[in-house]
Amino acid sequence: MRSWVESANGPSADFPLSNLPYGVFSRTAGPKDVRRVGVAIGDFVLDIAEAWAELVPSEPMLGYELFDEPSLNPFLAEGRVVWDFVRNQLQSWLSAGCPVLRDNTALRERAMIPLSQVELHMPIEIGNYTDFYASEYHATNVGSMFRPDNPLLPNWKNLPVGYHGRASSIVVSGTDVIRPCGQTKSDDAERPSFGPSRLLDYELEVGFVTGPGNEPGQRIPIEDAANHIFGLVLVNDWSARDMQKWEYQPLGPFLAKSFATTISPWVVPLDALAAVPRGDRTSAGRPEGAAVPRRCMGLGSRSETASRPADG
Amino acid sequence: MRSWVESANGPSADFPLSNLPYGVFSRTAGPKDVRRVGVAIGDFVLDIAEAWAELVPSEPMLGYELFDEPSLNPFLAEGRVVWDFVRNQLQSWLSAGCPVLRDNTALRERAMIPLSQVELHMPIEIGNYTDFYASEYHATNVGSMFRPDNPLLPNWKNLPVGYHGRASSIVVSGTDVIRPCGQTKSDDAERPSFGPSRLLDYELEVGFVTGPGNEPGQRIPIEDAANHIFGLVLVNDWSARDMQKWEYQPLGPFLAKSFATTISPWVVPLDALAAVPRGDRTSAGRPEGAAVPRRCMGLGSRSETASRPADG
Repeated sequence: MRSWVESANGPSADFPLSNLPYGVFSRTAGPKDVRRVGVAIGDFVLDIAEAWAELVPSEPMLGYELFDEPSLNPFLAEGRVVWDFVRNQLQSWLSAGCPVLRDNTALRERAMIPLSQVELHMPIEIGNYTDFYASEYHATNVGSMFRPDNPLLPNWKNLPVGYHGRASSIVVSGTDVIRPCGQTKSDDAERPSFGPSRLLDYELEVGFVTGPGNEPGQRIPIEDAANHIFGLVLVNDWSARDMQKWEYQPLGPFLAKSFATTISPWVVPLDALAAVPRGDRTSAGRPEGAAVPRRCMGLGSRSETASRPADG
Repeated sequence: MRSWVESANGPSADFPLSNLPYGVFSRTAGPKDVRRVGVAIGDFVLDIAEAWAELVPSEPMLGYELFDEPSLNPFLAEGRVVWDFVRNQLQSWLSAGCPVLRDNTALRERAMIPLSQVELHMPIEIGNYTDFYASEYHATNVGSMFRPDNPLLPNWKNLPVGYHGRASSIVVSGTDVIRPCGQTKSDDAERPSFGPSRLLDYELEVGFVTGPGNEPGQRIPIEDAANHIFGLVLVNDWSARDMQKWEYQPLGPFLAKSFATTISPWVVPLDALAAVPRGDRTSAGRPEGAAVPRRCMGLGSRSETASRPADG
């Protein structure tokens, strides 16, 4: 899948034509609050509204109006048919053989902005945020911090254990995270004490950005999940473990998590992952109430983390 | 405190001049999506924007524009100074001796709408919703359902135990609540089973609607709480106890709570409760990290619940 954007074609390119993640940008040279939805390709971001206005003027609602917006939410609300239509359109404009944007110098100069000349912002307005305890290895590992004798509780293999996080505390990658203050109590202390967390931890996670939603009381069959999941972001679920240990029973993690959660500025469409090779997991069995076994939708990805002390 | 609205003056009036709760209404005779913020007085709702446009045309932003809105959020974002200014203005217009609205028949007919001719809607757009485990009696009672030997955990007397609920599941009073389906597991069953909850419960609570908010990492001193709490609603925290028992460890209540939470359509300003006699509680002591003892802000209220079987 070659693009006429040369920087999109290398084997180490983050943003090849098969990816095309969506984000919200402002121009470094312009005001910060003039924001639009763009798509990353090679070293550029394509200003979708700008291209759409010229290339598909007959359907402004499906392009110009949806993307001349400071968040992806209006696009997310449209659902799978529009998501697919727009992605196909963008892939077509950016593919090597398509002249409509490639050979239109004036439009290209307006609509293709070097990534070095944009600032990236929160891509979505988050109405609700649920953190699932999704990996058996992670659940066992974290569980052993708090319950060494009993890390994985019996419900884990039967239902998706999760909790609601504080939607308003989600920030875009690069935002400073302030070390939280809170109560902690060591096992040998008689009383809790108050102060900055001394066990600030991170969790590398993948976040699912979902689409139009459903009416209360209407279930979404698991086979239909791909029609509701728009795409994925990387997530750092910052955690103050010392505060968490003292506060989390019986109602779950709260202030130990809600000071900040970081997401990537780019939302990778679900389709972009379909092409990535994956190692299939064996199913953990069919949970009660689900029509098909879980782990039916394998997604291929590799993630890495690294940390370094401040000023060594 | 007498009003020229006679139905506001009886000893059993829900909406006397000292209350003036805010809500969002549409006119039964008009389209449902034409919504405005109003204030309840006796058997009427005052269309604030309508009155403001005529009585304070020089300050539309503090009145007309704030209330010609389908939710209270723009008003909530203004903060304590504007909240007080508007409440004083409304109390003045509606008090027995003030002629500006009382004697203006044309305006009164446009702006004072009988409660029987309006439909009430969700008063606020909720960005985040936190459920605190706020009453010792309740915490002990619920705790004993799940942990008979150990109902009140040691953190309870030291910090505000709470969890985030699903903001999008909050509905206005009168909305049908659909009995949720989910996994449950009885103690003697080997496997969980799936089906409608058989232990649907309710919890009568008071909800605090908060104002402009704070920046991440900036603490709000507890002495300043009244500047951030706009008002109160009644809450029914519907709970599927059988689902809760099986799912709630270790991350807290989740699907057992997030199918619906009901709030009252009227938001009672904090000031309206200042006049209500209250029985002061003895303090539970000063939690670590708080500058003053908790329970410093007593609010007087009496609440009652009743239930009846369908077609009993």
